[in-house]
Amino acid sequence: MVGYAFMGAAHSQAWRTVNRVYDLPARARMALICGRDAPKVADAADRLGWDAYTTDWRDLINRDDIDVVDVCTPGDSHAEIALAALAAGKHVLCEKPLANTVAEARAMTAAADAARVAGVRSMCGFNYRRVPAVTMMRQMVADGRLGVIRHVRAVYLQDWIVDPQFPLVWRLQKDRAGSGALGDIGAHIIDLTQFVTGQRITGVSAVTETFIKERPLPAESSGLAASVDGAGPVDGNGSATGAVTVDDAAVFVARLDGGALATYEASRFATGRKNALRVEINGSLGSVVFDLERLNELEFYDATRPTVEQGFNRILVTEGEHPYMSAWWPPGHIIGYEHSFTHQMRDFIEAVATGADPAPSFADALQVQLVLDAVARSAELGSSWTEVEPALTAVAV
Amino acid sequence: MVGYAFMGAAHSQAWRTVNRVYDLPARARMALICGRDAPKVADAADRLGWDAYTTDWRDLINRDDIDVVDVCTPGDSHAEIALAALAAGKHVLCEKPLANTVAEARAMTAAADAARVAGVRSMCGFNYRRVPAVTMMRQMVADGRLGVIRHVRAVYLQDWIVDPQFPLVWRLQKDRAGSGALGDIGAHIIDLTQFVTGQRITGVSAVTETFIKERPLPAESSGLAASVDGAGPVDGNGSATGAVTVDDAAVFVARLDGGALATYEASRFATGRKNALRVEINGSLGSVVFDLERLNELEFYDATRPTVEQGFNRILVTEGEHPYMSAWWPPGHIIGYEHSFTHQMRDFIEAVATGADPAPSFADALQVQLVLDAVARSAELGSSWTEVEPALTAVAV
Amino acid sequence: MVGYAFMGAAHSQAWRTVNRVYDLPARARMALICGRDAPKVADAADRLGWDAYTTDWRDLINRDDIDVVDVCTPGDSHAEIALAALAAGKHVLCEKPLANTVAEARAMTAAADAARVAGVRSMCGFNYRRVPAVTMMRQMVADGRLGVIRHVRAVYLQDWIVDPQFPLVWRLQKDRAGSGALGDIGAHIIDLTQFVTGQRITGVSAVTETFIKERPLPAESSGLAASVDGAGPVDGNGSATGAVTVDDAAVFVARLDGGALATYEASRFATGRKNALRVEINGSLGSVVFDLERLNELEFYDATRPTVEQGFNRILVTEGEHPYMSAWWPPGHIIGYEHSFTHQMRDFIEAVATGADPAPSFADALQVQLVLDAVARSAELGSSWTEVEPALTAVAV
Amino acid sequence: MVGYAFMGAAHSQAWRTVNRVYDLPARARMALICGRDAPKVADAADRLGWDAYTTDWRDLINRDDIDVVDVCTPGDSHAEIALAALAAGKHVLCEKPLANTVAEARAMTAAADAARVAGVRSMCGFNYRRVPAVTMMRQMVADGRLGVIRHVRAVYLQDWIVDPQFPLVWRLQKDRAGSGALGDIGAHIIDLTQFVTGQRITGVSAVTETFIKERPLPAESSGLAASVDGAGPVDGNGSATGAVTVDDAAVFVARLDGGALATYEASRFATGRKNALRVEINGSLGSVVFDLERLNELEFYDATRPTVEQGFNRILVTEGEHPYMSAWWPPGHIIGYEHSFTHQMRDFIEAVATGADPAPSFADALQVQLVLDAVARSAELGSSWTEVEPALTAVAV
Repeated sequence: MVGYAFMGAAHSQAWRTVNRVYDLPARARMALICGRDAPKVADAADRLGWDAYTTDWRDLINRDDIDVVDVCTPGDSHAEIALAALAAGKHVLCEKPLANTVAEARAMTAAADAARVAGVRSMCGFNYRRVPAVTMMRQMVADGRLGVIRHVRAVYLQDWIVDPQFPLVWRLQKDRAGSGALGDIGAHIIDLTQFVTGQRITGVSAVTETFIKERPLPAESSGLAASVDGAGPVDGNGSATGAVTVDDAAVFVARLDGGALATYEASRFATGRKNALRVEINGSLGSVVFDLERLNELEFYDATRPTVEQGFNRILVTEGEHPYMSAWWPPGHIIGYEHSFTHQMRDFIEAVATGADPAPSFADALQVQLVLDAVARSAELGSSWTEVEPALTAVAV
Repeated sequence: MVGYAFMGAAHSQAWRTVNRVYDLPARARMALICGRDAPKVADAADRLGWDAYTTDWRDLINRDDIDVVDVCTPGDSHAEIALAALAAGKHVLCEKPLANTVAEARAMTAAADAARVAGVRSMCGFNYRRVPAVTMMRQMVADGRLGVIRHVRAVYLQDWIVDPQFPLVWRLQKDRAGSGALGDIGAHIIDLTQFVTGQRITGVSAVTETFIKERPLPAESSGLAASVDGAGPVDGNGSATGAVTVDDAAVFVARLDGGALATYEASRFATGRKNALRVEINGSLGSVVFDLERLNELEFYDATRPTVEQGFNRILVTEGEHPYMSAWWPPGHIIGYEHSFTHQMRDFIEAVATGADPAPSFADALQVQLVLDAVARSAELGSSWTEVEPALTAVAV
Repeated sequence: MVGYAFMGAAHSQAWRTVNRVYDLPARARMALICGRDAPKVADAADRLGWDAYTTDWRDLINRDDIDVVDVCTPGDSHAEIALAALAAGKHVLCEKPLANTVAEARAMTAAADAARVAGVRSMCGFNYRRVPAVTMMRQMVADGRLGVIRHVRAVYLQDWIVDPQFPLVWRLQKDRAGSGALGDIGAHIIDLTQFVTGQRITGVSAVTETFIKERPLPAESSGLAASVDGAGPVDGNGSATGAVTVDDAAVFVARLDGGALATYEASRFATGRKNALRVEINGSLGSVVFDLERLNELEFYDATRPTVEQGFNRILVTEGEHPYMSAWWPPGHIIGYEHSFTHQMRDFIEAVATGADPAPSFADALQVQLVLDAVARSAELGSSWTEVEPALTAVAV
Repeated sequence: MVGYAFMGAAHSQAWRTVNRVYDLPARARMALICGRDAPKVADAADRLGWDAYTTDWRDLINRDDIDVVDVCTPGDSHAEIALAALAAGKHVLCEKPLANTVAEARAMTAAADAARVAGVRSMCGFNYRRVPAVTMMRQMVADGRLGVIRHVRAVYLQDWIVDPQFPLVWRLQKDRAGSGALGDIGAHIIDLTQFVTGQRITGVSAVTETFIKERPLPAESSGLAASVDGAGPVDGNGSATGAVTVDDAAVFVARLDGGALATYEASRFATGRKNALRVEINGSLGSVVFDLERLNELEFYDATRPTVEQGFNRILVTEGEHPYMSAWWPPGHIIGYEHSFTHQMRDFIEAVATGADPAPSFADALQVQLVLDAVARSAELGSSWTEVEPALTAVAV
């Protein structure tokens, strides 16, 4: 694994747990973790349960006893690491968004397609697909329970940078993160809604905004930030500040290729909303509603029931018959955020061990990247309607 | 009053009730109700409690003992009736949207401004402003409890025409209704969010859709409908059908003049949503959430409280200290949809009796009309960004 | 009508409205209202819409043109007025609880049974039976949708006397009110759960408590209160105080004659609960949940659906097909507390006009009184199990 | 650890995880797991991550390198194992309820008190104390945020045996489980409410019921069950059946030593309720509400705020400042049921390593046992009021 911060910890918890809960054809060994800061990565390896650590990610590529590389770094290094890993025949699990640019995502997808011929598997970490209620929604749409999809409304709302004094961390820097709320959390709702509906976004009209344009440099990484911003300005407190170069929020309307209208919103300025990924889908026969802050629940409106009994049915998605749940606790004993990663590792291990293609593929993730790109272009062009560029990956070979 | 259908019944209930609940400087007498179908309007007059009825709305204008004209007809007759009433010195309460076109709305606003000089009052029936929780939201924003407004997200969702066999009623005909979901329910969320935030929408990018393009002609008004559509096509059941000429749904992103980003959605195809006007507003210091299906409640997130106790506070807006509530029942004894009209009549009567200007004025309603117009134009122009035309009413004289 | 305070206002609103909304075989005329304080009742008559007023309730009995007497006074005068009215051949609607003692309730029931032979109708005002969601619950139980009832859990929680400085109003005096939370709000959940389940409470084990035992005398009725309490003690503020002679809260477990276990709680000390009448009923095939603060909603769990789709279904009880709702507004346009009275008047008028027996009868209300009595006796006897005395009304004739 | 079924799996997940998440003065090694069925426990050891397994729990006692014994068996073996472990100087974590009888619980408590002098620690596994929202409730009460506690209402509702064909598992047999819903889930709400309020239940009046009195013998353990019940009766399907010897449901009213009234209900027949441990506490200054099915949330009503802003505040208990949460994910990224065990292990390890007394002690658990005993006795004595026997453990030495 490369990276040991938030995503590194979440993935580690999943790697440690997956074989304890699921009966799988292969067992994960947590061999080597990589980070740039030796003392910190050493500590992380010990705490998170890795056998060894390194400060050079190429060590993972070079070791013959390592079969899988899990990329948990910021987006600016995804392409380099993933391309090298694929070239070396390693199976790759790469965090989302796949890359910071469409060009990188295209290169990664081409590499994944090429490696696939040699039995090398690749997958992008849109973990929310594996929240049981989300998996169930997809199945319900696929089974026709919702009929023709008319509306998608999706938001992913957080509020961790509402305070103007919150520092300029890497997620607020375009060169590291690619974009702001859009790529970080907007990518999740784009992927999730396309996954659930089975439809693709074809065009968008978007508005983005950076509400707070200058922020204090973070104390612990001021050297790095200073090198980016030169001497940099100074704020009212006499602190060095830097420019926020990504969006704080992105909103857009969209059309899906199955005829649905959609609205999307990703924001880090929705005061009081901590991790509010909320999706509602209305079809001609029914509707579903999901909220990540209550991820064990799914609301389902079944318009085929008798009128007097129709309503939004709050399903507690904790039965053994629900996706992924038979391995966990009795009904009503809820699971948490981290379980989506355990489910992801379960499916990835199974795919690698059985020679199947895991989903979402890099091609799927490229398509999300193309939507992100269309959103960004629309916002730059004064919200003009912008078609999502086709992926065209099939013709590559 | 002109009109005796849905709005006519709701207004009548309010006129009957208002002086029984509130102590006001004037008392309403329900003198004369007008409709085109004599037997029906006679029955309505008797049932709804009007002293007399007529089939010619000019009778209201001509009677000296009538001071107020309440216009509850479809939008295509608002302008003619309201202009005549104002010219005759009658105070006018006109249902929303103010008119079917910007031109009509401008003419009505000019007439209202002119009449105002002579002490004639006019008001547009955006009744949801008088839901106590909505009035309270506005007060909270005005008091600075939310800080700088960052986000507005508003939907008004219904589902009464999801069935393709639902007939082609007047609300689905552009010549009668002006527009579909946009003007009928979209107008409410435009007005409500502008009212609450004190900000104006400056530009929009919109998508509208008519999912079901042909519908059966309604049996009871087929003569009228046939005259519109000529012989018309015939559907699979052998029934005569007509073209739906309005939008089934409208979605748009917007900017407000105070710097907020906003998303709006109005739809009659949101299966399971019956009257779901939902608004969330995020500010730098707090957020509020409202849902018309639970109109006695207001959620308020106060980001100035200690972190460990922050949360969305479900306020039951039924205390005597809450707007309009001291006249009703003890705390926790909820009110319903119709009470918003009683509150509207209370404020209208008070304004007329004391010589004050009621709100929303026709000028306010014109501004909503201009937003509706911008949305419609943006949708026609492929979702291009469209500025809201300025009202410029002040220079009219 | 006798009484013009809270219940008087609620009933008046219903009498004024019922014929405007429902098409009924008779029309109510609001002829005469009675209260002891002439200026106040004169004002109430004018405001609430009564033709005339009086300070002697016997005037209602003596007028030949009055057919119905509506008793909205405190419980200590119910028996005298109702007995006189029935003896004079007036149809009687009496507020709940029917009386302050079992003996009075028995006498009233006997009188009602006797009058019934002569075509005189009587009904007790357990208005919550006419909340559409409650009526619907009863129908669902009757239709077998819940199977065998296993559990009833009912609370009615308020908080209006949490403050020890809240004065000693008549509802806190045993001689006026009979009991405290028990008779005032406990009576509602006893009646409602028996109505919905079709089962009777057979025995109880109860605890009651008076948390605040002395309260300041109310300023506006200090003369009256002083005459009750003599000179009375004085509190820390130097105010005259009096003893609270009723329960602040009552909790009890019970068995129902159909085999269900039940818990009940009535309290005026549930901080934050304003009018929280909440009932959950679990049966072998399903469950229902109701909350009066969200009275337009009913949650229904249907255990006969496929396991993966089972959940609590939030039904918005606002469809035309729902009880009482076809006369009101379109789906999703909610009604309020007061509508339960309008529905009550609708059924009462219809029963009187068609010669049918309205429900709940005085005999039904007597049975509630017998449960209240068993609860009070159990609490006095140290929570010992106490059987509910049989009504035995059938043998009276 | 002894036991490898539901509790064994939950505890194992916690032992595996605790040192990966928390920085603690000692690290757990999962040395030896014990079960009676060799192949099954071998499989469990491998899957759950234990170094070795045994079929004789005395092996844990005899190994010098084992410091802690975690007892996860049914209640009938708690006393024997825990007493032996304490006698051997092992720290003991014992699942709840502490024992099947008061006598056993007294013996265990005496042993724990004696061992404590020698530095041996013991703790009972009321894991829900470590749900962050529950820990927070206790702190709020202790800080006086609720004022004087007036009401406790607690339910723990499940529905896994509603079907009469559900087999006669050990939890339905008195000799194995001690009692039914009462000891299994009722014990949790007794402990939790006493923990949160800091008050003890002093007396109860209870009703218990066994709705389904005969059930089919479980296929996989029919040999064992048959030996208990002899030849046994045969049901309508020709299956061998056995008598259910425990309660399906228990309801009781109670008084607490701080003056509060309380209602409790534990049931396995609450159709649709899967794991619904719900607690509401009303105090003179505020109220709190908790629901285990939404364990990341806490509702808090603060009656000291301005009237117009009072409401139930839905706190998402996922901030770093909330109990136990700094080690987990960012705000809004919810945790699950299993995390309560990880928190329990954290506190247990810390207590053992630092020589502190973990809570709840065996004495605390004995007090819960005494309440359970009072409930059972009250139910047997026709719901008569029954005082909770004092623990008197302090005088034992």
